[in-house]
Amino acid sequence: MAKNDKLVQDITPRSEDFAQWYTDVVKKAELTSYSPVRGAMILRPYGFAIWENIQKDLDRRFKETGHLNVAMPLLIPESLLQKEKDHVEGFAPEVAWVTHGGATELEERLCIRPTSEVLFCSHYAEIIQSYRDLPKLYNQWVSVVRWEKTTRPFLRTTEFYWQEGHTAHATAEEAQAETRRILQIYIDFYENVLAIPVIRGLKTDKEKFAGAEKTYTVEAMMHDGKALQGGTSHYFGDGFARAFDITYSDENNELKYVYQTSWGVSTRMIGGIIMVHGDDDGLILPPRIAPWQLVVVPIALQKPGVREANEKLVERLKANFRLTSDFSDKMPGWKFSEYEMRGVPLRLEYGPKDIEKGQVVAVRRDNREKIFLKIDENLEDNIQKILDQIHNDLYAKAEEELYSRIYEADDYETMSKLLTEKPGFVKTYWCGDVACEEKVKADLQASSRCLLEEEVPEDACCPICGSKAKYKIYWGKAY
Amino acid sequence: MAKNDKLVQDITPRSEDFAQWYTDVVKKAELTSYSPVRGAMILRPYGFAIWENIQKDLDRRFKETGHLNVAMPLLIPESLLQKEKDHVEGFAPEVAWVTHGGATELEERLCIRPTSEVLFCSHYAEIIQSYRDLPKLYNQWVSVVRWEKTTRPFLRTTEFYWQEGHTAHATAEEAQAETRRILQIYIDFYENVLAIPVIRGLKTDKEKFAGAEKTYTVEAMMHDGKALQGGTSHYFGDGFARAFDITYSDENNELKYVYQTSWGVSTRMIGGIIMVHGDDDGLILPPRIAPWQLVVVPIALQKPGVREANEKLVERLKANFRLTSDFSDKMPGWKFSEYEMRGVPLRLEYGPKDIEKGQVVAVRRDNREKIFLKIDENLEDNIQKILDQIHNDLYAKAEEELYSRIYEADDYETMSKLLTEKPGFVKTYWCGDVACEEKVKADLQASSRCLLEEEVPEDACCPICGSKAKYKIYWGKAY
Repeated sequence: MAKNDKLVQDITPRSEDFAQWYTDVVKKAELTSYSPVRGAMILRPYGFAIWENIQKDLDRRFKETGHLNVAMPLLIPESLLQKEKDHVEGFAPEVAWVTHGGATELEERLCIRPTSEVLFCSHYAEIIQSYRDLPKLYNQWVSVVRWEKTTRPFLRTTEFYWQEGHTAHATAEEAQAETRRILQIYIDFYENVLAIPVIRGLKTDKEKFAGAEKTYTVEAMMHDGKALQGGTSHYFGDGFARAFDITYSDENNELKYVYQTSWGVSTRMIGGIIMVHGDDDGLILPPRIAPWQLVVVPIALQKPGVREANEKLVERLKANFRLTSDFSDKMPGWKFSEYEMRGVPLRLEYGPKDIEKGQVVAVRRDNREKIFLKIDENLEDNIQKILDQIHNDLYAKAEEELYSRIYEADDYETMSKLLTEKPGFVKTYWCGDVACEEKVKADLQASSRCLLEEEVPEDACCPICGSKAKYKIYWGKAY
Repeated sequence: MAKNDKLVQDITPRSEDFAQWYTDVVKKAELTSYSPVRGAMILRPYGFAIWENIQKDLDRRFKETGHLNVAMPLLIPESLLQKEKDHVEGFAPEVAWVTHGGATELEERLCIRPTSEVLFCSHYAEIIQSYRDLPKLYNQWVSVVRWEKTTRPFLRTTEFYWQEGHTAHATAEEAQAETRRILQIYIDFYENVLAIPVIRGLKTDKEKFAGAEKTYTVEAMMHDGKALQGGTSHYFGDGFARAFDITYSDENNELKYVYQTSWGVSTRMIGGIIMVHGDDDGLILPPRIAPWQLVVVPIALQKPGVREANEKLVERLKANFRLTSDFSDKMPGWKFSEYEMRGVPLRLEYGPKDIEKGQVVAVRRDNREKIFLKIDENLEDNIQKILDQIHNDLYAKAEEELYSRIYEADDYETMSKLLTEKPGFVKTYWCGDVACEEKVKADLQASSRCLLEEEVPEDACCPICGSKAKYKIYWGKAY
């Protein structure tokens, strides 16, 4: 083998060092590369293609529900960021500041957007006059910058890619309905596209978005039992509208404030895909966002007719599937490992014997099951069925992992023991006091994930302080 | 009419003040809005939808020719920008500098990318080892920042949206072929999608990209006779490769430098669409990138059956066309003007008489021609034919405008007179000396647009200095 052939190198087993396994997979599958800027990642073609597939699906869902894409500027004047008090307190410590344009010092510093609420608000104040202008349902696909101290590809980077929706409504009810509508889109996307089950609910006041009245979240459980906040949908009430003076004349010509929402999911999702589905051989990509759903590997390529038959197969399947093929002179075994490591959901092996029998050998990435497929008019349907089955099986496996690791605790000792010894989430009652959240953080390095939508019995107590419970809540360690 | 109904306001006629006409159209058609950051525009839904259609078409062309999308970081360390001498000289005066992350001053300043050559180069230096790794054909869709002094929406903004392709090749010939392949994609896109004819050729050394050996350009002529540089494709030779040490081992295991290209088109194109096709009533959008190709306007909406018939028509045509409809209680005349101003290529009027006759009235935006279309199984085909005809007619009109205003001059007096008095381009011979270019700039406020690919007779002279001519060249005033 030539010295420059890339070898399928060993990946650290998950049980040995999960963080190292993650880093190995991200690098070896060529998803990202480190960049010359601390904490900012380069999204390589394979990583970016996953993001493109995520974008395509979500963008369709947003448009079907009446949302329009726009593009707001990258930079925010310092005075504009300061207009909403909670918001600036939440974000100012972690923004990057532009102070010079060319050789000239700017009169006012500009920050690179950490999120774009204030830009949308100042635009809405300008373009909304009448109830006929409402609702405004805008979204944008951009990157944002947050000056994080410790960074990891996809999970926490100084620059990341996301969509941010920002909407304005005539009434609180409509805005709340939007917040929940989007939460439902996120849940559906996680489950039906990424094959990742999520828990969902409200964030506590401590954990909610800076400036929001309510923050809904979807939370996924990674293979190591830790939580990944997977997407958030915020209800702002009229707080931003008052700060930015966004008003409209209603049907009776009375001046009213609008009610707003914002919501976003980011390239973090790709970190979630890796850590929920991956195994010790590398990535396992859910078929609906895999850049390549199939890889065609010719067997005994040197034998007469094999190349032509494989080319014909590739040509045929390209019409229905995202696929790649490998006609290089590397050994089939090398190719098997390589495309397994890169998480291609289904491999098609096609050699002289198969050609003779009019079949192709399909091998599933997730469970290595080997399936013989007749090459007839049903081939595409049968492949699609396998891809759907892979999706369902990935989901079922992740669901089993999630629910088998959600525990309940009624007292602080049990809660502590679980959060210290058992990877996973713990459900408890909670009084609603931030002091209890801070104690859990300090004692157990765990944070509240979200509130359950469940009634709390009259006599239930907070296991942390013993006071009367108001909520039931999930706790967990988180990325 | 309620006070909050938007009126179709008058637009300054082009003959009166072309710059004001442009500003009026951009604003009234709701393409952009001014932002709180000087010189940065907000792309509103209608403006962004044009950009999305442009992206979709070009992205397909890039992918069909083997290019892969990636995402490079937004920020560039100062030391990295300085690695290629010509490049940093060209861009350093106009970049925005980040000096602080949160409250901490950075050890090294970072600039917001004005273009990403240096990021791609440092990445290529890392990932290219062998001839098997070549070519690398990468592209990204991002925004870039250049601290311009005077700005106008789409034409010159401190932040703009574009694609930037960056490729690395084993040989100079392959890189040059790529440069020309992309030029051809741009020409084809301008002509067959935007309905804009272009002249094309090499830039002079004075006008070429900072760091390039050769820059090809496509140049369009606006309605006022001024040029708009519409897209550029650069050949770098191995200059960047030497500065960034991007080498590969060839088949004989010899270490060689790669040869590179870069190329880009931006939201400037939207400015071109406006200024080539628009008229005194507003925008005229080419059908292939119009956010709405059709607008359905019901006539006598209050009469029985009209709403239902129009809804049915909309539902039917939605499957084949991007369309909007206006069922509001505004007068049809108001609606006609509104969607004409916004440049929708074809209006469909549908009222009781039409319903009775089984027809719909189509009115072309570009020439106001009225066409009666039978509502039968050929309706979609017939509408498509009209849209294609609109495209062809827009192109023919723009081509007539372009070629009727390209002049030739053999002496400096004629050249001066033409460039001063006749809006348009002037072709002359040229000696190749930058001093002559600078003289034309100083005397006539015109710049070289591009070289013609035409043989120069032995006895031809430069009309500026009288020396022997080496080239034939286009001159013009430019945006």
